[in-house]
Amino acid sequence: MPLTSSFAAQSATSPLAPYEITRREVGPTDVQIDIEYCGVCHTDIHQSKNDWGASNYPVVPGHEIVGKVITLGSEVKYLKIGQRVAVGCFVDSCHTCSSCKADLEQYCLNGFTATYNSTTKDPGGFTYGGYSKSIVVDTHFVLTIPDGLDPAGAAPLLCAGITTYSPLRHWDIKSGMTVGIIGLGGLGHMGVKLSHAMGAKTVMITTSKNKAADAMKLGADEVLISTDAVAMNAMTNQFDFLLNTIPVPHDFNYYMPLLKVDGTMCIVGSVGPTAELNTGPLIFGRKSVADSLVGGINETQEMLEFCAKHNIVSEIEVIKMEEINYAYERMLKSDVKYRFVIDMNSLS
Amino acid sequence: MPLTSSFAAQSATSPLAPYEITRREVGPTDVQIDIEYCGVCHTDIHQSKNDWGASNYPVVPGHEIVGKVITLGSEVKYLKIGQRVAVGCFVDSCHTCSSCKADLEQYCLNGFTATYNSTTKDPGGFTYGGYSKSIVVDTHFVLTIPDGLDPAGAAPLLCAGITTYSPLRHWDIKSGMTVGIIGLGGLGHMGVKLSHAMGAKTVMITTSKNKAADAMKLGADEVLISTDAVAMNAMTNQFDFLLNTIPVPHDFNYYMPLLKVDGTMCIVGSVGPTAELNTGPLIFGRKSVADSLVGGINETQEMLEFCAKHNIVSEIEVIKMEEINYAYERMLKSDVKYRFVIDMNSLS
Repeated sequence: MPLTSSFAAQSATSPLAPYEITRREVGPTDVQIDIEYCGVCHTDIHQSKNDWGASNYPVVPGHEIVGKVITLGSEVKYLKIGQRVAVGCFVDSCHTCSSCKADLEQYCLNGFTATYNSTTKDPGGFTYGGYSKSIVVDTHFVLTIPDGLDPAGAAPLLCAGITTYSPLRHWDIKSGMTVGIIGLGGLGHMGVKLSHAMGAKTVMITTSKNKAADAMKLGADEVLISTDAVAMNAMTNQFDFLLNTIPVPHDFNYYMPLLKVDGTMCIVGSVGPTAELNTGPLIFGRKSVADSLVGGINETQEMLEFCAKHNIVSEIEVIKMEEINYAYERMLKSDVKYRFVIDMNSLS
Repeated sequence: MPLTSSFAAQSATSPLAPYEITRREVGPTDVQIDIEYCGVCHTDIHQSKNDWGASNYPVVPGHEIVGKVITLGSEVKYLKIGQRVAVGCFVDSCHTCSSCKADLEQYCLNGFTATYNSTTKDPGGFTYGGYSKSIVVDTHFVLTIPDGLDPAGAAPLLCAGITTYSPLRHWDIKSGMTVGIIGLGGLGHMGVKLSHAMGAKTVMITTSKNKAADAMKLGADEVLISTDAVAMNAMTNQFDFLLNTIPVPHDFNYYMPLLKVDGTMCIVGSVGPTAELNTGPLIFGRKSVADSLVGGINETQEMLEFCAKHNIVSEIEVIKMEEINYAYERMLKSDVKYRFVIDMNSLS
């Protein structure tokens, strides 16, 4: 029988409020998870408000999910009841395309199934996310949380963590390199921690002098104030890699001269039309602009192990479910250091 | 004593006409070259017309130079009088920066000296290019033309050839890969020949059905008409690499879905503001947009050897010096297959 679960859902006209939904039955390869914490990602706001014009109401947001196994499908061997697990941004993919075969499910050529607001054969027709008491997910897409990792602080690793970890790994960031993290928010603060832990000289690049002290506390070796033309000029050709976490359209060309020859800027913050590309700053150094989307399942597990080893979690503010609308308002004013996480026990 | 040489120069108000200029004396590491052929690059038009606002008149264009050694500096050991040599887009660099030390003089961090319209200590204060009877160049920047390579057809290899060869080599194009060459002009026709010779499946991507037959003759395995939405859609995720030779601002985002995961589009045609970057087509495949500038001296020599081995030269139309203004007019109408080359013996 399908399972029922209370959850917090949003429609175009109403704020988040608790409802009952029907989850699919636990199939042979499924895991049912009692959700303890769910991180709040900016995507949740976009989807709740239908900013991208593709929301299917009721939307149940949440793709930074941490909880405990409460039911195991008959074929699931490697997990135990009570084990702490996690779910990130997607819950299915085709398993057959070249991307899936290369452990890059996030680039599934047939399209992955997002953790919420994605078409599914499950009851309701669309996936429902982590602002909920429980969730049923195919075991392939269930991560395990290593011992010692704070479960609330770990929740944002499932999106903000892997979104920054994956490009840093792909572009082989390591000791001896200089990495610039542009923008200090949910993504940026994870970028600083991870780049630092990978051994790179890590420079926080921000418009705000007020963020300098925080950036240093998070692990930045230096802070570069991007509105200081003299300081920016002094750093020309100094960076092996730039991770651009600015969440809105902006003139990314401005930062390109910071890169060394053959350097890459990976934009992970702004999705969609961003600014006019000027090839001038690229051509005199064979520079690249790239983009990257979360990470594959194996890489996400690797990231969680890496974070456990280096004692890295997200800086968070834990809220109750009933505070979510207020949290959205604060996020829109960048008033959070650096990620809200919902204590799902607060959902009645 | 400084040398004199007749040359064809352009001012802001007058068309190209012959003048006398003073060349520097042949120093110990210099080579004086009797110019046989000089290719005509679109850059020549931009510089002649001061399109980039940086022209210093009189401008002597020309950076696709082939000729014979007529004078050798006392320290030049590896060349002989009468040997066929070539000069490309730059004639000096700092020799000390990380780029120069890595044989990437084109990315000299202190700025290379362009073959024309670049500041120099030589008489005149600015370099003068290849629309001339002779030129004096430091031996480090002098290439040798392998036996068997047609000297007129080889001239455009020094710019159009290396501009397409270098990115194809840098992104390691080889058998088993699928490469798209976008745009069939001076750069594009070299891109097709070189990509084909490197063993890649080479697809000409063009708006014009009329160019299909020519593209196949040049070595394309297929032609993709970019205005055919059905054909474009069928080629989604099929390309390892796109070499974009479109010489004007355009919506490059349109071509990004053609790339496989981790694919790169290298823009070599349009320099400067090109179009608004939409990160959407990049993020769902970790795709990159890059740019590349000609090639280093060693790589240019390698390219010439590669072309000799594979019997590749540019498709050209040889003109007399007096026809240059007419040639510029035709180039602006894309009426050339595929490069004009000036027979410098025609300069009186």
